[in-house]
Amino acid sequence: MKRSYQKRDSITLLENAALRLRKVATVVNGVTETPEDWHKVTSKLVFGNEYVDALSGLDRLKSVWVIFGFNRHRGWSPRVRPRCAKDDSLVGVFASRSSKRPNRLGLTLVDIVNVKGNIVTVRGLDAFDGSPIYDLKNQDDDYDSRQRPRNR
Amino acid sequence: MKRSYQKRDSITLLENAALRLRKVATVVNGVTETPEDWHKVTSKLVFGNEYVDALSGLDRLKSVWVIFGFNRHRGWSPRVRPRCAKDDSLVGVFASRSSKRPNRLGLTLVDIVNVKGNIVTVRGLDAFDGSPIYDLKNQDDDYDSRQRPRNR
Repeated sequence: MKRSYQKRDSITLLENAALRLRKVATVVNGVTETPEDWHKVTSKLVFGNEYVDALSGLDRLKSVWVIFGFNRHRGWSPRVRPRCAKDDSLVGVFASRSSKRPNRLGLTLVDIVNVKGNIVTVRGLDAFDGSPIYDLKNQDDDYDSRQRPRNR
Repeated sequence: MKRSYQKRDSITLLENAALRLRKVATVVNGVTETPEDWHKVTSKLVFGNEYVDALSGLDRLKSVWVIFGFNRHRGWSPRVRPRCAKDDSLVGVFASRSSKRPNRLGLTLVDIVNVKGNIVTVRGLDAFDGSPIYDLKNQDDDYDSRQRPRNR
Protein backbone atom coordinates (compact mmCIF):
# COMPACT_ATOMS: atom_id res chain seq x y z
CA MET A 1 0.00 0.00 0.00
CA LYS A 2 2.74 2.39 1.02
CA ARG A 3 4.82 1.45 -2.01
CA SER A 4 1.85 2.14 -4.27
CA TYR A 5 1.50 5.70 -2.94
CA GLN A 6 5.19 6.35 -3.36
CA LYS A 7 4.97 5.21 -6.96
CA ARG A 8 2.05 7.52 -7.64
CA ASP A 9 3.88 10.47 -6.04
CA SER A 10 6.94 9.97 -8.19
CA ILE A 11 4.79 9.84 -11.33
CA THR A 12 3.03 13.10 -10.32
CA LEU A 13 6.41 14.73 -9.68
CA LEU A 14 7.57 13.74 -13.14
CA GLU A 15 4.44 15.19 -14.73
CA ASN A 16 4.92 18.49 -12.91
CA ALA A 17 8.62 18.68 -13.60
CA ALA A 18 8.63 18.24 -17.37
CA LEU A 19 6.71 19.63 -20.33
CA ARG A 20 6.82 17.98 -23.72
CA LEU A 21 6.76 20.61 -26.48
CA ARG A 22 5.46 19.74 -29.91
CA LYS A 23 7.01 21.31 -32.98
CA VAL A 24 4.39 23.52 -34.69
CA ALA A 25 6.56 24.66 -37.62
CA THR A 26 9.99 24.18 -39.23
CA VAL A 27 12.44 26.91 -40.28
CA VAL A 28 13.30 26.84 -44.00
CA ASN A 29 16.02 29.39 -44.85
CA GLY A 30 18.97 27.40 -46.24
CA VAL A 31 21.24 28.84 -43.52
CA THR A 32 23.67 26.20 -42.25
CA GLU A 33 26.53 28.45 -41.05
CA THR A 34 26.38 31.64 -38.97
CA PRO A 35 25.75 34.48 -41.46
CA GLU A 36 27.28 37.94 -41.34
CA ASP A 37 24.02 39.53 -40.26
CA TRP A 38 21.04 37.50 -39.02
CA HIS A 39 18.85 40.60 -39.42
CA LYS A 40 19.09 40.24 -43.20
CA VAL A 41 18.06 36.57 -43.22
CA THR A 42 14.58 35.78 -44.54
CA SER A 43 13.06 32.53 -43.26
CA LYS A 44 9.93 30.62 -44.11
CA LEU A 45 8.21 29.10 -41.09
CA VAL A 46 6.34 26.10 -42.50
CA PHE A 47 3.48 25.18 -40.15
CA GLY A 48 1.55 21.94 -39.95
CA ASN A 49 -1.84 22.25 -41.66
CA GLU A 50 -3.59 21.89 -38.30
CA TYR A 51 -2.23 25.34 -37.33
CA VAL A 52 -3.51 27.42 -40.30
CA ASP A 53 -6.46 28.80 -38.31
CA ALA A 54 -4.12 29.69 -35.44
CA LEU A 55 -2.20 32.01 -37.82
CA SER A 56 -5.28 34.14 -38.55
CA GLY A 57 -4.64 37.86 -38.02
CA LEU A 58 -0.86 37.43 -38.01
CA ASP A 59 -0.66 39.24 -41.38
CA ARG A 60 -1.86 42.43 -39.65
CA LEU A 61 1.13 42.45 -37.26
CA LYS A 62 4.48 44.07 -38.05
CA SER A 63 6.50 41.82 -35.77
CA VAL A 64 6.10 38.72 -33.67
CA TRP A 65 8.02 36.85 -30.95
CA VAL A 66 9.36 33.48 -32.05
CA ILE A 67 10.18 30.73 -29.55
CA PHE A 68 12.34 28.15 -31.31
CA GLY A 69 14.69 25.30 -30.50
CA PHE A 70 18.49 25.41 -30.59
CA ASN A 71 18.46 22.00 -32.25
CA ARG A 72 22.23 21.85 -32.84
CA HIS A 73 23.21 22.05 -29.19
CA ARG A 74 23.51 19.35 -26.56
CA GLY A 75 24.25 19.99 -22.90
CA TRP A 76 24.45 23.35 -21.14
CA SER A 77 26.92 25.52 -19.19
CA PRO A 78 26.06 27.23 -15.87
CA ARG A 79 28.39 30.12 -16.77
CA VAL A 80 28.99 31.51 -20.26
CA ARG A 81 31.00 34.27 -21.89
CA PRO A 82 28.60 37.06 -22.97
CA ARG A 83 28.62 37.85 -26.67
CA CYS A 84 29.72 41.48 -26.19
CA ALA A 85 32.12 40.88 -23.25
CA LYS A 86 35.32 42.94 -23.33
CA ASP A 87 37.19 40.57 -21.01
CA ASP A 88 37.12 36.89 -20.08
CA SER A 89 34.58 37.24 -17.28
CA LEU A 90 31.66 34.80 -17.30
CA VAL A 91 28.01 35.32 -16.32
CA GLY A 92 25.30 32.85 -15.40
CA VAL A 93 23.52 31.44 -18.42
CA PHE A 94 20.16 32.79 -17.11
CA ALA A 95 21.67 36.33 -17.26
CA SER A 96 22.59 35.74 -20.93
CA ARG A 97 21.10 34.80 -24.30
CA SER A 98 23.60 32.00 -24.88
CA SER A 99 22.29 28.85 -26.53
CA LYS A 100 23.97 26.62 -23.91
CA ARG A 101 20.82 26.59 -21.74
CA PRO A 102 19.20 23.88 -19.59
CA ASN A 103 16.16 24.11 -21.92
CA ARG A 104 17.29 24.79 -25.47
CA LEU A 105 14.80 27.56 -26.24
CA GLY A 106 15.61 30.65 -28.32
CA LEU A 107 13.54 33.84 -28.22
CA THR A 108 13.72 36.52 -30.91
CA LEU A 109 11.51 39.36 -32.13
CA VAL A 110 11.23 39.16 -35.94
CA ASP A 111 9.61 41.15 -38.75
CA ILE A 112 6.65 39.59 -40.53
CA VAL A 113 7.08 39.72 -44.32
CA ASN A 114 3.87 37.90 -45.24
CA VAL A 115 1.53 35.04 -44.35
CA LYS A 116 0.29 32.62 -47.01
CA GLY A 117 -1.68 29.58 -45.90
CA ASN A 118 0.54 27.54 -43.60
CA ILE A 119 3.72 29.54 -44.36
CA VAL A 120 4.80 32.63 -42.41
CA THR A 121 7.76 34.49 -43.98
CA VAL A 122 9.82 36.48 -41.47
CA ARG A 123 13.02 38.53 -41.44
CA GLY A 124 15.61 38.54 -38.66
CA LEU A 125 15.20 35.09 -37.13
CA ASP A 126 18.59 33.80 -35.89
CA ALA A 127 17.77 30.12 -36.34
CA PHE A 128 19.44 27.63 -38.68
CA ASP A 129 17.64 25.75 -41.45
CA GLY A 130 15.49 22.98 -40.00
CA SER A 131 15.12 24.48 -36.51
CA PRO A 132 11.83 23.63 -34.78
CA ILE A 133 9.38 26.40 -33.92
CA TYR A 134 7.36 25.98 -30.71
CA ASP A 135 5.39 29.23 -30.44
CA LEU A 136 4.65 32.64 -31.97
CA LYS A 137 3.38 35.44 -29.74
CA ASN A 138 1.99 38.86 -30.54
CA GLN A 139 4.13 41.71 -29.21
CA ASP A 140 2.09 43.29 -26.41
CA ASP A 141 3.31 46.11 -24.17
CA ASP A 142 1.38 44.68 -21.25
CA TYR A 143 3.72 41.68 -21.19
CA ASP A 144 6.77 43.16 -22.92
CA SER A 145 7.40 46.26 -20.83
CA ARG A 146 7.48 47.05 -17.14
CA GLN A 147 5.43 50.24 -17.51
CA ARG A 148 1.77 49.43 -17.95
CA PRO A 149 -0.79 47.69 -15.73
CA ARG A 150 -1.88 44.22 -16.76
CA ASN A 151 -4.89 42.08 -16.04
CA ARG A 152 -5.67 38.55 -17.11
CA MET B 1 16.12 -4.83 -42.96
CA LYS B 2 13.73 -2.36 -44.55
CA ARG B 3 11.49 -2.45 -41.50
CA SER B 4 14.48 -1.71 -39.28
CA TYR B 5 15.29 1.47 -41.23
CA GLN B 6 11.69 2.61 -41.09
CA LYS B 7 11.70 2.17 -37.34
CA ARG B 8 14.89 4.22 -36.99
CA ASP B 9 13.44 6.99 -39.16
CA SER B 10 10.29 7.23 -37.09
CA ILE B 11 12.34 7.47 -33.90
CA THR B 12 14.46 10.27 -35.41
CA LEU B 13 11.31 12.09 -36.48
CA LEU B 14 9.97 11.89 -32.94
CA GLU B 15 13.22 13.28 -31.54
CA ASN B 16 13.13 16.21 -33.95
CA ALA B 17 9.46 16.94 -33.45
CA ALA B 18 9.34 17.16 -29.67
CA LEU B 19 11.41 18.78 -26.95
CA ARG B 20 11.15 17.74 -23.34
CA LEU B 21 11.55 20.78 -21.06
CA ARG B 22 12.75 20.36 -17.52
CA LYS B 23 11.43 22.62 -14.79
CA VAL B 24 14.33 24.71 -13.46
CA ALA B 25 12.36 26.61 -10.79
CA THR B 26 8.93 26.84 -9.15
CA VAL B 27 6.85 30.00 -8.62
CA VAL B 28 6.01 30.68 -4.95
CA ASN B 29 3.65 33.65 -4.58
CA GLY B 30 0.49 32.33 -2.90
CA VAL B 31 -1.60 33.56 -5.85
CA THR B 32 -4.37 31.08 -6.69
CA GLU B 33 -6.93 33.42 -8.29
CA THR B 34 -6.39 36.18 -10.89
CA PRO B 35 -5.38 39.30 -8.91
CA GLU B 36 -6.49 42.86 -9.65
CA ASP B 37 -3.04 43.80 -10.93
CA TRP B 38 -0.35 41.23 -11.78
CA HIS B 39 2.22 44.05 -11.88
CA LYS B 40 1.98 44.37 -8.10
CA VAL B 41 2.51 40.67 -7.44
CA THR B 42 5.88 39.67 -5.96
CA SER B 43 6.97 36.08 -6.65
CA LYS B 44 9.84 33.96 -5.45
CA LEU B 45 11.33 31.74 -8.15
CA VAL B 46 12.80 28.81 -6.22
CA PHE B 47 15.50 27.15 -8.34
CA GLY B 48 17.00 23.70 -7.96
CA ASN B 49 20.43 23.88 -6.29
CA GLU B 50 22.08 22.73 -9.53
CA TYR B 51 21.15 26.11 -11.08
CA VAL B 52 22.72 28.48 -8.49
CA ASP B 53 25.81 29.12 -10.66
CA ALA B 54 23.56 29.78 -13.67
CA LEU B 55 21.98 32.71 -11.74
CA SER B 56 25.31 34.52 -11.36
CA GLY B 57 25.14 38.15 -12.54
CA LEU B 58 21.35 38.21 -12.50
CA ASP B 59 21.41 40.58 -9.48
CA ARG B 60 22.99 43.25 -11.72
CA LEU B 61 20.01 43.24 -14.12
CA LYS B 62 16.89 45.38 -13.64
CA SER B 63 14.59 43.06 -15.54
CA VAL B 64 14.56 39.61 -17.08
CA TRP B 65 12.40 37.56 -19.45
CA VAL B 66 10.65 34.63 -17.81
CA ILE B 67 9.46 31.61 -19.82
CA PHE B 68 7.01 29.67 -17.66
CA GLY B 69 4.31 27.04 -17.99
CA PHE B 70 0.54 27.63 -17.97
CA ASN B 71 0.16 24.59 -15.75
CA ARG B 72 -3.59 25.01 -15.20
CA HIS B 73 -4.58 24.69 -18.83
CA ARG B 74 -5.23 21.64 -20.97
CA GLY B 75 -5.93 21.75 -24.70
CA TRP B 76 -5.74 24.78 -26.99
CA SER B 77 -7.92 26.88 -29.31
CA PRO B 78 -6.90 27.87 -32.86
CA ARG B 79 -8.82 31.17 -32.49
CA VAL B 80 -9.21 33.19 -29.31
CA ARG B 81 -10.82 36.42 -28.21
CA PRO B 82 -8.08 39.01 -27.61
CA ARG B 83 -7.95 40.42 -24.08
CA CYS B 84 -8.62 44.01 -25.18
CA ALA B 85 -11.07 43.24 -28.02
CA LYS B 86 -13.98 45.68 -28.32
CA ASP B 87 -16.16 43.20 -30.24
CA ASP B 88 -16.58 39.45 -30.52
CA SER B 89 -14.03 38.99 -33.30
CA LEU B 90 -11.46 36.23 -32.82
CA VAL B 91 -7.78 36.10 -33.83
CA GLY B 92 -5.42 33.18 -34.28
CA VAL B 93 -3.81 32.10 -31.03
CA PHE B 94 -0.32 32.78 -32.53
CA ALA B 95 -1.36 36.43 -33.01
CA SER B 96 -2.31 36.62 -29.31
CA ARG B 97 -0.92 36.08 -25.82
CA SER B 98 -3.75 33.75 -24.79
CA SER B 99 -2.83 30.80 -22.60
CA LYS B 100 -4.81 28.39 -24.82
CA ARG B 101 -1.71 27.59 -26.92
CA PRO B 102 -0.46 24.36 -28.55
CA ASN B 103 2.59 24.59 -26.26
CA ARG B 104 1.60 26.00 -22.89
CA LEU B 105 4.44 28.53 -22.58
CA GLY B 106 4.06 32.00 -21.07
CA LEU B 107 6.51 34.85 -21.69
CA THR B 108 6.69 37.96 -19.49
CA LEU B 109 9.26 40.65 -18.77
CA VAL B 110 9.55 41.06 -14.98
CA ASP B 111 11.44 43.30 -12.52
CA ILE B 112 14.19 41.69 -10.48
CA VAL B 113 13.81 42.53 -6.77
CA ASN B 114 16.78 40.49 -5.51
CA VAL B 115 18.72 37.25 -5.87
CA LYS B 116 19.68 35.19 -2.82
CA GLY B 117 21.25 31.77 -3.37
CA ASN B 118 18.75 29.67 -5.31
CA ILE B 119 15.86 32.16 -4.94
CA VAL B 120 15.16 34.99 -7.41
CA THR B 121 12.49 37.44 -6.21
CA VAL B 122 10.67 39.22 -9.04
CA ARG B 123 7.75 41.62 -9.46
CA GLY B 124 5.16 41.48 -12.24
CA LEU B 125 5.10 37.80 -13.15
CA ASP B 126 1.57 36.76 -14.20
CA ALA B 127 1.92 33.13 -13.10
CA PHE B 128 -0.03 31.33 -10.40
CA ASP B 129 1.53 29.73 -7.34
CA GLY B 130 3.30 26.50 -8.26
CA SER B 131 3.83 27.31 -11.93
CA PRO B 132 6.95 25.77 -13.46
CA ILE B 133 9.75 28.03 -14.76
CA TYR B 134 11.65 26.82 -17.83
CA ASP B 135 14.01 29.70 -18.62
CA LEU B 136 15.21 33.19 -17.69
CA LYS B 137 16.80 35.39 -20.36
CA ASN B 138 18.63 38.69 -20.14
CA GLN B 139 16.86 41.52 -21.95
CA ASP B 140 19.04 42.32 -24.97
CA ASP B 141 18.17 44.85 -27.67
CA ASP B 142 19.86 42.69 -30.30
CA TYR B 143 17.16 40.07 -29.86
CA ASP B 144 14.35 42.20 -28.44
CA SER B 145 14.10 44.94 -31.04
CA ARG B 146 14.08 45.11 -34.83
CA GLN B 147 16.52 48.04 -35.00
CA ARG B 148 20.06 46.84 -34.39
CA PRO B 149 22.34 44.42 -36.25
CA ARG B 150 23.01 41.08 -34.63
CA ASN B 151 25.73 38.48 -34.95
CA ARG B 152 26.09 35.13 -33.30
